This record gives sequence, C-alpha cells and structure tokens, in this order.
Amino acid sequence: MQIGAIGEFGLIGRFKKQLKTDATVIRGTGDDCAVLALDTKRYQLFTCDMIVEGVDFVKKQDPYLIGRKAVAVSLSDIAACCGLPKHCVIALGLPGSADVRFVDRLFKGMRDIAQEFGVNIVGGDISRAPKLTVDVSMLGVVEKNKIALRDAARPGDVICVSGSLGGSIRGKHLRFTPRVREARYLSANAKVHAMIDISDGLIQDLGHILMQSNVGAMLYEELIPISTQARDLEDALYSGEDFELLFTLSRTEAAKILKKKKGVFSPIGEIVHKKFGLMLFDRRNRRHRLKSKGYRHF
Amino acid sequence: MQIGAIGEFGLIGRFKKQLKTDATVIRGTGDDCAVLALDTKRYQLFTCDMIVEGVDFVKKQDPYLIGRKAVAVSLSDIAACCGLPKHCVIALGLPGSADVRFVDRLFKGMRDIAQEFGVNIVGGDISRAPKLTVDVSMLGVVEKNKIALRDAARPGDVICVSGSLGGSIRGKHLRFTPRVREARYLSANAKVHAMIDISDGLIQDLGHILMQSNVGAMLYEELIPISTQARDLEDALYSGEDFELLFTLSRTEAAKILKKKKGVFSPIGEIVHKKFGLMLFDRRNRRHRLKSKGYRHF
Repeated sequence: MQIGAIGEFGLIGRFKKQLKTDATVIRGTGDDCAVLALDTKRYQLFTCDMIVEGVDFVKKQDPYLIGRKAVAVSLSDIAACCGLPKHCVIALGLPGSADVRFVDRLFKGMRDIAQEFGVNIVGGDISRAPKLTVDVSMLGVVEKNKIALRDAARPGDVICVSGSLGGSIRGKHLRFTPRVREARYLSANAKVHAMIDISDGLIQDLGHILMQSNVGAMLYEELIPISTQARDLEDALYSGEDFELLFTLSRTEAAKILKKKKGVFSPIGEIVHKKFGLMLFDRRNRRHRLKSKGYRHF
Repeated sequence: MQIGAIGEFGLIGRFKKQLKTDATVIRGTGDDCAVLALDTKRYQLFTCDMIVEGVDFVKKQDPYLIGRKAVAVSLSDIAACCGLPKHCVIALGLPGSADVRFVDRLFKGMRDIAQEFGVNIVGGDISRAPKLTVDVSMLGVVEKNKIALRDAARPGDVICVSGSLGGSIRGKHLRFTPRVREARYLSANAKVHAMIDISDGLIQDLGHILMQSNVGAMLYEELIPISTQARDLEDALYSGEDFELLFTLSRTEAAKILKKKKGVFSPIGEIVHKKFGLMLFDRRNRRHRLKSKGYRHF
C-alpha cells in the first residue's frame, strides 16, 4: 500500500498510537507544537517544519524568500499555540551544485526574519541532498494559562481568523507575516480557547479543531475575509499556506478583541454541538454541509 | 562559486559570522549542540541532524536501521556534550511512492532507540520529498558543571576515545550505539575538559577541538584502537561515522576512569602547545605531521 492511500494524517495517526511519552510531555504529536514542562509558570513549545524544493517552492524563486519562508512556517506554529518564539536550529540539505551566492541569500532570508521576531539561530546541520531541503526546528515559551491548543473549542465560541484567506499560491506563501505579534496580542488581551494556524486550508485546519474538541461549527460565507489574491470562496476555504490564525473564544472575549482590532481579526462563525457537523450558510442563507478537504501532501 | 569550493565548514563559518544571539544562548553554532540557559543548575542542549537517502544510507537498507540511525546521530550529539537526551521532533521527507510498510519499519526503528534512551518523540512534520530525508531535532539537559564542549582542551590533557575506530561504512554506521551511557558515566565520575563525537573521522573531529581550544596534539599509533572492521590505520584516522566519543581530561582524571573502564575508553595521545600542531608517532616512534582531513560533505 502506497502512503498516498492513507495520507499524511493517516501516517501520523499510525505512528502516534505507538508512542509513549513521560510526564514532562504535556502534549505530544498532534498539535502545532509539542508542549513540554518548563517551569512553574511556563511551558516550552517545540516544533519543526520541513520545506522541499519542487513541493513548497521552486528553484527559480528568490532564495532569500525561500529562507524566509522556512523560518516563517515554524514561527507560525509557535504563534498558533500563543507562544513566544525563542531559538531555532536549521537543517539544510543542499545539492552539490549549489552556488555559494544562492546559499548566502538563503541564509540572509533566514537571519532577517529570525531577527525580526527575536529568534536566535543557534545551530544546524548541512548535508548533501538531491533537492534543496530546509527543516527548521524551533523552541518557544508560553505562559501556562495562555496556551491555546486544538482541543479546547466549546459550543457557543466565536470562530475567528486573522487576515484574509485564499490565493496564497499567488505570492503570499513566500512573503507571509507569521502571526506571532497577533497571537501575543491575543494572549495578553483575551482568553483564547482553541487555536491553529491555517496551513492546509481553512476547512481542513478547522476540521482538526472540531475533531480534537469534539464539536461542530457553522460558518457564514458573508463573514469570511477573502483575500484579493483568491479566485473565489472555494479558494479561501480550501487552498493551503495562508498561515493565518484560526481560533475560538467566548462571545464576551470575542467582542472585546473584535472591537479593538477590527480588520486584524474577523469572526467567521461559531462552534456548535458536534451533531451539526460542519456547515456553511451562504449569502442567501442556504445551508451547505462541508466535507473536510484541503491540501494533501501525498 | 560552487559550495564544494568552501565545503560544509566554510558555509557554516560564513553564516555564523552574520548571527547575533542574545544572553540566553550560552553557545550557538559551532559545537555538537547549542547550549541554552535553562535553570540555575542546568543548561538545555539543542541539536539537529539530517540524513538523506543516497548520502547517509541507501534505499535497499532495512528502514528499521535507517530510522534507528536518524535518531542515533542526534543522541550522539547530546552525548558529546555530556548531556542527557530528553525529547525529539522528527521531520520526514518521503517520496510519494513510499510504501506504508516501509514507513512503519522506519517509525519502529526510531521509536525503539528513542525508548531505549528514554527520549520522548513529541512531534514532527511529514512532507513529500524526492528522496527519503529524515531530520531529527533533539533536546537534552546537562548540569552546568558537567558540560563538555570543544574549546576546553588544555596542554597536558590526555586524549581518549570510546570504543574502536574505522570501517564504520561496513555496517557499524547503521547499528552504532550512541555513547550516551558512556558520556553520563564520564559526567558522574570525571571532569571532562573537551569532548566531541567522531562523525567525520578522528583527525577531522580532533581538529575541531584543537582549533577551538587553540592547542596541538600528539597521537600514538600503538594506542589507537582500530576496529576489526577497519582496513588499516588510515581508515581509523580518517573515515567517518564512528560516532565514538573523543575527549580530553587531566592526567589524574584520565587515570581514574581508564583504570575503572578499561576497554570502554582508551587513551590515544595528549594535548600539547599549539606550536606542535597535530602529530602522530608511529610504532617505530617516527614523527608524522598530520593534516586535518576526513569526510567531506561536498
């Protein structure tokens, strides 16, 4: 059986079942970051993301932007747990034919975004590889009472997103701003219940929150902030690499932040009982049942 | 200019110069692990190692052993700092044609060695990639007064290695035991000055200690423990992937551990003033000046 038959999440599920972790692991595989015991007030966050030439970018793209993206996707994972990113190590797979100037630009892209977000690049590994491959592993910290994971959405919660959705393939996926500052604003000003970053499309990533929180959701087409780069609603719902925050919080908390940060965060629907599944109300208030689909890695 | 012209260490050097880190980074790029502030008594260690099909292993090899190796090389880095490994995340690049059974075996190899050394596998990322690629990022801890880095060798120190050297390509590189227990024995029973794991060959890795400690070394051919798998002395000096510990400590400390752990650790020479460079005395006591060479990644 080829892996395409079970997909990325099938593979992760198979593996996860076999893993045992000790009491210092608050949350292992299955969220944006692993959550580890740190001290009395804080958890440590640990995540990695690999990007590969021909899959996540093509070679002719500016290596500065490729380096930037490699670090940005991990920043986005730390943000998705409401964390503050701290340190990263970078594993780099390079074809022997790579040019030093190309690698210099790649480094510069990594360094600049790390610096912008106050992250120390503390080490790495360089290997020969047939295609350019960059894996960034990042550490962050989060206050215990601020952490936002995928399993804490509650019926009645308002579902919100940062920014606008869709069409990332037309440029944003290489230049997006990881929502670290927005997540820290949330952690300082509201009690977020569940959060994830949208990497595989709104519907697929919302599906992770719904499944892990054991709830359903109603979305409203007229509320969904569609990017000017998006072709249509479908694109905003299903296309990958938006790297925006998708989160849920109580009505009271939502009202607070949506008033102060209009345009930064938008409400798009609400969490409901699991029995309703995932529904979208269109502009004429017709109800559509949505199936989880989105970017497939295999 | 192609990267082969400056090599892995040239690239790392170029990058390192551009990096600034804050006060929580005790040691950044350039050692086996990054060393980070943790609490009053301990440092956190952070490292990553990427292995790639066709470079570090071939596809026909048992995926169990490939998975095992991917985790073992990072365990070896933690050991090289005298640390105790704790958690890891795994980024996996898989060709779309990969078979689920293959991936299951790969996972099992990772899981078994992680379990053997008390390491939690806490997360990861699975991407499509043209060749099987595995990057393991690992966290560990080490007591502040036990840490062993590359820059602390002193003239008069005895140079020691664990195990035997050379010929790893004939099997050991896929089955080696990372020297975590041996390193923890050292940390509990001796004051180690400098330490590194031998991944690119004894002479090249000793070169890192000499350069970073600003010292020279004399080695004695008759003392070098040559593996039964090694073809000859050259092989023991220069071939990669032994994953043994190479360390220096005072004569008194060396005498203590060499008496108790004969066969586990062997003395191979001594640290001298930098002006002597790196020399080898052969069995007839003739002196040879050695140049740093070893495994080249590019």
